Amino acid sequence: MKLATLKDGTRDGQLAVVARDLKTAQLADGIAPTLQRALDDWAFIAPQLQQLYQDLSNGRGRRTFDFDPAQCMAPLPRAYQWADGSAYVNHVELVRKARGAELPASFWEEPLMYQGGSDDFLGPRDDIALFHEEWGIDFEAEVAVITDDIAMGATPDQAYQQIRLLALVNDVSLRNLIPDELAKGFGFLQSKPATSFSPVAVTPDELDDAWKGGKVHLPLRSTWNGKLVGQPHAGVDMIFNFPQLLAHLAKSRNIRAGSIIGSGTVSNKDSKRGYSCIAEQRCLETIAGGAPVTPYMAFGDTIRIEMLNGDGKSVFGAIEQTVTRADAAGGGK
Amino acid sequence: MKLATLKDGTRDGQLAVVARDLKTAQLADGIAPTLQRALDDWAFIAPQLQQLYQDLSNGRGRRTFDFDPAQCMAPLPRAYQWADGSAYVNHVELVRKARGAELPASFWEEPLMYQGGSDDFLGPRDDIALFHEEWGIDFEAEVAVITDDIAMGATPDQAYQQIRLLALVNDVSLRNLIPDELAKGFGFLQSKPATSFSPVAVTPDELDDAWKGGKVHLPLRSTWNGKLVGQPHAGVDMIFNFPQLLAHLAKSRNIRAGSIIGSGTVSNKDSKRGYSCIAEQRCLETIAGGAPVTPYMAFGDTIRIEMLNGDGKSVFGAIEQTVTRADAAGGGK
Repeated sequence: MKLATLKDGTRDGQLAVVARDLKTAQLADGIAPTLQRALDDWAFIAPQLQQLYQDLSNGRGRRTFDFDPAQCMAPLPRAYQWADGSAYVNHVELVRKARGAELPASFWEEPLMYQGGSDDFLGPRDDIALFHEEWGIDFEAEVAVITDDIAMGATPDQAYQQIRLLALVNDVSLRNLIPDELAKGFGFLQSKPATSFSPVAVTPDELDDAWKGGKVHLPLRSTWNGKLVGQPHAGVDMIFNFPQLLAHLAKSRNIRAGSIIGSGTVSNKDSKRGYSCIAEQRCLETIAGGAPVTPYMAFGDTIRIEMLNGDGKSVFGAIEQTVTRADAAGGGK
Repeated sequence: MKLATLKDGTRDGQLAVVARDLKTAQLADGIAPTLQRALDDWAFIAPQLQQLYQDLSNGRGRRTFDFDPAQCMAPLPRAYQWADGSAYVNHVELVRKARGAELPASFWEEPLMYQGGSDDFLGPRDDIALFHEEWGIDFEAEVAVITDDIAMGATPDQAYQQIRLLALVNDVSLRNLIPDELAKGFGFLQSKPATSFSPVAVTPDELDDAWKGGKVHLPLRSTWNGKLVGQPHAGVDMIFNFPQLLAHLAKSRNIRAGSIIGSGTVSNKDSKRGYSCIAEQRCLETIAGGAPVTPYMAFGDTIRIEMLNGDGKSVFGAIEQTVTRADAAGGGK
């Protein structure tokens, strides 16, 4: 099934089921008011949502309305956890190579992962409002899973069973703030502003055969200012699958329902597939010519992130955002 | 006022007001079911809770019961944000000195801060259940603030106005997992298991004159296995006050209601005040004698963290935890 959270003026919005073709939707308020509430009691709630979804997708919905991604908040407008891996190690290797550093061998054996801010997510059509272009504004197209409870010490196989939903992510990054934060060793804070999500989150069965081995086997398309700049395959070169990322995170603590874990920037070794973030293109340019050529995003730039299935249908709907100049304090949203 | 969250079998528990002397309590369910709900609409909810609190503290409460910290969850059993500063730079300097590294000058001018996991907090009397002593189990006694909404770009003065509550924190750390994670530069993940909180969170006015300049001017007492090992003064050597920590976090994103921001390990230059984490004592031993002497915590060890006001009364109640060996997967709680 496909689930969305609609803007209604509240912090958590209203849960809706969305038809498979993303054309119509129906409020799920009789079942669960918010997606977090559904995840808090998934075994009980999910079958009811599934029934609503089937009726809706088969044209037997009641109180249906046109689905408008512009009315969507992030599926979880705020979450109790957002942790982002770097499963496409090719991306990490390129970044290192561009600055003349070797990739530690351990990076192929143990995931890199950072804890992100999760109190203020953006919806799929919300502006990316920031104060300064000079911060080096970049998009990062990713896939993420949303989990049920996972016990501390869970194996990848155990974690796999607790994956409830998938979504697309734009992990907006401020490239020029990153070097100083990396040097401190304490991870990203100012260099990762609010993260954006696709209009709908979907259960794994919506991906049919494309959900296999804990990976999504479909290309992820990034279109920057109307130009397709990347369509790397999310099932290729993903060194750590989602269950492995989850087990890594669960080593010393429980993961609780509603946690969102990202894949990191989707990246293929075959550079003809293009890029899911500008930084990677700049690395390739640096390796080839000694210096980056492509600039980061400017105010007014747009970014569209989408994943099509084998039939060319949009699975998650599109993230489609414009970078804007934020006003002084308070301009963030 | 003083607020607690009582265990009731749900994920978010039940909000209660607690009398100033921490002896009695009363459910706030007629006003707000959970602390997050109160923070979501603080201007409207807080005055009602305050009235309940005044009646209770003056012996005019109804449906009151004995307050039992063992029945407490963390004031926010799960939160949308937990970010922890290192405001007591003396602590950072000692750690560096012990390993022969200089402290970058910038550390005195800009806060270190990491994004922590916030989906699974521990109550004040919950066991610290972990798999291996070899991970180097340590406590970290801290003070934290809980905020209302703070807009991106807020100044310290603006952020100050949005501090709603204070609490004590045990930021449990796995010292032997930290070096590898610091080297990766992506911050703490496995090395920071579930964080623990004091029985009650209190509004700043409960601290009277001890809340001044965005700092808490009281000693923080840490008692390890029944022995008082530290009582550094939280108002001394705090290089960045809470408003400055908040402004640092808000540089490129909004902070939303219910965010928890920590001070980092409370630490004084005067080492006679003792320590708020074992790592610091081990650093002093290393600097003095070339090697650490004091071991980290063992299964069965206890840690008590408390703050007394000028009259010798407990402000937040005591964190009082035992380190235990977790079972295989699922033993986390």
